[in-house]
This record gives sequence, C-alpha cells and structure tokens, in this order.
Amino acid sequence: MALSVSDPQTVLEQFLRALRTRVDTRLGELLPGPTHPQDPIAAAMREGTLAPGKRIRPLLLLLALQDFDRLDEGAFDIACALEMIHAASLFLDDMPCMDDASLRRGRPTIHVQFGEDIAILAAVALLSHAFSVAACAQGVAHPVRTQMVCLLSQAIGSQGLVRGQYFDLREGRQQRPLDAIANANQLKTGSLFTAALEMAALFARCDVRQRNLLRGFAVELGHAFQLLDDLDDSMSSQQTGKDSGKDDGKSTVISLLGADATRQLLKEHVRYAEDHLARLGLAGGLLSQLLDRLFARAR
Amino acid sequence: MALSVSDPQTVLEQFLRALRTRVDTRLGELLPGPTHPQDPIAAAMREGTLAPGKRIRPLLLLLALQDFDRLDEGAFDIACALEMIHAASLFLDDMPCMDDASLRRGRPTIHVQFGEDIAILAAVALLSHAFSVAACAQGVAHPVRTQMVCLLSQAIGSQGLVRGQYFDLREGRQQRPLDAIANANQLKTGSLFTAALEMAALFARCDVRQRNLLRGFAVELGHAFQLLDDLDDSMSSQQTGKDSGKDDGKSTVISLLGADATRQLLKEHVRYAEDHLARLGLAGGLLSQLLDRLFARAR
Repeated sequence: MALSVSDPQTVLEQFLRALRTRVDTRLGELLPGPTHPQDPIAAAMREGTLAPGKRIRPLLLLLALQDFDRLDEGAFDIACALEMIHAASLFLDDMPCMDDASLRRGRPTIHVQFGEDIAILAAVALLSHAFSVAACAQGVAHPVRTQMVCLLSQAIGSQGLVRGQYFDLREGRQQRPLDAIANANQLKTGSLFTAALEMAALFARCDVRQRNLLRGFAVELGHAFQLLDDLDDSMSSQQTGKDSGKDDGKSTVISLLGADATRQLLKEHVRYAEDHLARLGLAGGLLSQLLDRLFARAR
Repeated sequence: MALSVSDPQTVLEQFLRALRTRVDTRLGELLPGPTHPQDPIAAAMREGTLAPGKRIRPLLLLLALQDFDRLDEGAFDIACALEMIHAASLFLDDMPCMDDASLRRGRPTIHVQFGEDIAILAAVALLSHAFSVAACAQGVAHPVRTQMVCLLSQAIGSQGLVRGQYFDLREGRQQRPLDAIANANQLKTGSLFTAALEMAALFARCDVRQRNLLRGFAVELGHAFQLLDDLDDSMSSQQTGKDSGKDDGKSTVISLLGADATRQLLKEHVRYAEDHLARLGLAGGLLSQLLDRLFARAR
C-alpha cells in the first residue's frame, strides 16, 4: 500500500482508520452471515468480534508488514484470524466462572446478551474458524499456512492465553512477586502480540535476528499494554467501556508498586520496545508511530 | 500393519485393542506432561482425554485406512487430534450452563473435578492443540495438513458440533419433528465421524466417488450411534458410566416414536451404512466388522 509522508500524525490516523475499516469489512465477510434472524451463535460471533475496538493485534501484523514493505491482500485474512481469537478469549474471560464481567467495549458482555451457553459455543466457533482462515489463506504457501496454524495454537494453548488466564484466576488473589505478575501479564497479553509479529516475520521472510527482535518488541509491548490496562482499571468505566475496579483485591503491579512506579515501569517497557524497533531499522516507522500513539497519555 | 485373517472375531478384538493402546500412548505423548503437580489444566486435559473410552473417532480413521491398506505412523497423530476435539466437546457439553452432567465415562465430569474455569480453559487448550497436531503431522504433505485443519474446523464450528449442541440446548425441550431431531443428532455426532472419514479419504487418496461413499457411511453411522446413545440413556448409569435420564423431558427420537420404532430405525441406518461400505468394496472389512460389533446388542 502506498503511504505519503507529509504531516505524519494525520497520515498515521488516516492509515490506521483505513486498515481498521478493511479489517472490519473482511471480518464481516469471513464471519457467518447475519442471514438467519434466530441464529444467536452467528449473532454473538459478529457482535463480539465487530464491536468497536482498537484492533491492536491486526494492526501489529499489518503495520509490521507495511514497515517491511510486504503488506498484501493475504495478510488481512490472518489479521482477522488474530482478532477472532482475541474476541473469543474475551467472551470466555468475561464469563461468571472467570472474571464475571458485565461490560466490555461499552456494551453488555456476550454471556449477558446471549447466555453462558451461547458465549461458550460462539467462542469455540470463533476459535475454530480462525484456524481455518489461517489454513485457507489465499495466496499464501501451504508451509506458511501450517506454521501460522502452529503459531496461533501456541498463542492460545496451555502455554499461552489459557495459561495466562489460569495464573490470573488462581494466583491473582494471592500476593505474588513482580516477576510472577509480569509472567502472567505476558501470557495474557503478549501471547497474541507475539503471534502477530511472528506471523509478520514469516510473511516478510525475516531472518532469525529480525524475528528475534520482533519477538522481543512484542514482549515489551505486551508488558506495557497490560500495565496501561491496569492503570485504566482504576479509572471509571465511562472512560474505558469496561467494568471498573475488576482488579480490586487482585495482586497487580499497581497493588505491589503503586501507580507512579507502575507508570515508570511502563515507560521503560515502551523504551525497550522502541530499542527493538531501532535495531530492526524501523525507528520512526509505522510500528514505532503506533507505539507513540498508544502510550502518549501514559507519558 | 499386517493383519491375519484366522478367527475374525478374536483378531478384530486384538487389533482394536492394539490400535487403542497406540492411540492412548501417542495421546499421552502429545498432551502436556503431568510434570508439574499443581497444573490442573494439564491434569484436566489428560484426565478427560485419556479416561477409558471407545475411541470411536480414532478407530474410524485408522480402520478405514487399514481397509484401504494405507495405515501408517502419521495417521495416529490425526487420530489423536480427533480424540482431543471429542474430549474438549464433552468438557463443554457437560458444563452446568449446558447439559449439567456430573458423571462421564464412569468418573466425575471435568468441571466437577477441576472447576468450571479449568474445564473451559482445558477445553480451549485441547481444541487449539488438536489444530497444531494436524498442522504439524509428521510425514504428511503440507497441502494435506491444511485441508485437515479445515476439515476439523468445519466439524467443530458454527455448522458442526457447535450447531448441534445449540440445537440440542435451545430446541431440545420443545416438540420437534423427526427430521429436526435427526439433523441435530447428525451435527452433534456425525460431524466428527464425517471428519474422520474425510481425513481417511485424504490420506488414502480416494477419488470423489469413494469420498462421497465414505461421507455417506459416516452420516448413517452418526445417526445409528446417536440412536443407540438415546436408547442407552434410558438405562441405568452403572451400564453407561454416564448420568442416566439426562434426556428426560427432551424431544428425542424415542420420545417421538417409542423404543421399538427407534430400534428399527437404528437397524435401518446400520444397514444403509453397510450398503455404503459394500459399494466401496469394503464389505467384510474392518469398518464393517466394527459396525457389526458396535450395534450387535441393538439387533
């Protein structure tokens, strides 16, 4: 995609908006259609995936590819697979037996709208659909497709999102040392960020060094993002569109270090993330601009 | 695998036992290890998948391949992926917000043993692991792997197991015509049977006619199997290892036609299934013998 460089801030905004629109359009095509009025599974899948959101995971993949000048049509399907998995993980995290959340992205959570059974079934349908989207990605070689399926599986599975959610649920109520909290945060948030950037590395045919740096960037970004989320949780739900105070009584970095030190730690992770991009020769590129934009209010 | 033909009944028994043992051994290797004593996700994944069971879905794949003289090592991984998906679907079907079952395979259900949160997380981990097992199957060409991922996704997703469970949950309590019950049964039970036999067709490089006949066999078998399950439900839990009477008040084929007519219908489906095998030139083969054995008590 062509990208002019005049007025970087406006250009970035327009470009992000254009990418999000394309992702949402493609998501709408890939998800089961809203044809049958009494099909709550399709409705829940669409509602939870197409609800307004930042689309960070798709953007990470797409901006990385644009930075490497390798962005093409096939990447949008993979971006959609990432967003489907993210949406499915939110359906399940919000369930009464997990975080018991009633508000998400400014709307009632999926189990509140459709019932717990539909929330589970729609999450399973979204997860399995994401794998098929990756396995069937047009214009992508079969060995790349199978590697993408494996990356997505790792990101979700017993050493990925699932493990992060488990740590949060079962250990989050006890006092934990900082590294245990950081590890849980990394699994919960960093897993899909890492998958997005590993897939960018695959698409852009990066060498091992570049791939490691992209992975390192993803890890730092994951830490920073989760810290920002924790700081947001202490704000009102009007500002975040989520239940506020869900972290009350939970051992987070804020409960351990306080808000100021958390903000300081966040800045460090952002700086490390920027370092990784600089070593990739991507300082000032789109990923770097996204980073600036995401964390501007934390500085 | 070599198979002698003397004393067919004993030989079949021995062969089935050998296949089940190999499937269970490979499942044990593929599932996350029981190394960490306080890892309930791995424990739930192992407990629910390795609990004694008929392993019908793996057997369908493996026996079909043996009938086509195409059984090799790589097929066992795919057989395990099928069993993982089946186990995950049972974890979720048994949840309080679904069928609310407390007993399965003679043991407390997964959410009873480990909690609802772990049951959901372990099911998600099993599902995503199954996709990675299919995508990484050793000795299998990449285009075959991507097709298998797509077949598994179809079998699970919004037009597969998920849809069948939805019909059962939301429409099962109302009066339904016979074809609506048959359709729900087919989605719940036939989806993975069909995937198993479609994957056998892929591995054995079947032509379109053979593939259609295998799919037809799977559909008939799915109907017969679900009818047998319904008949079993009216029996005591000692005999089935599951909660009995879970179908009370549910619109099943038995509630519509009575037990005798259900048994008659079951026999018809078994006969149609046999017809499909005969047209494939597999009359008297291993699939055919399995069919005999599964439904002997219904005759």
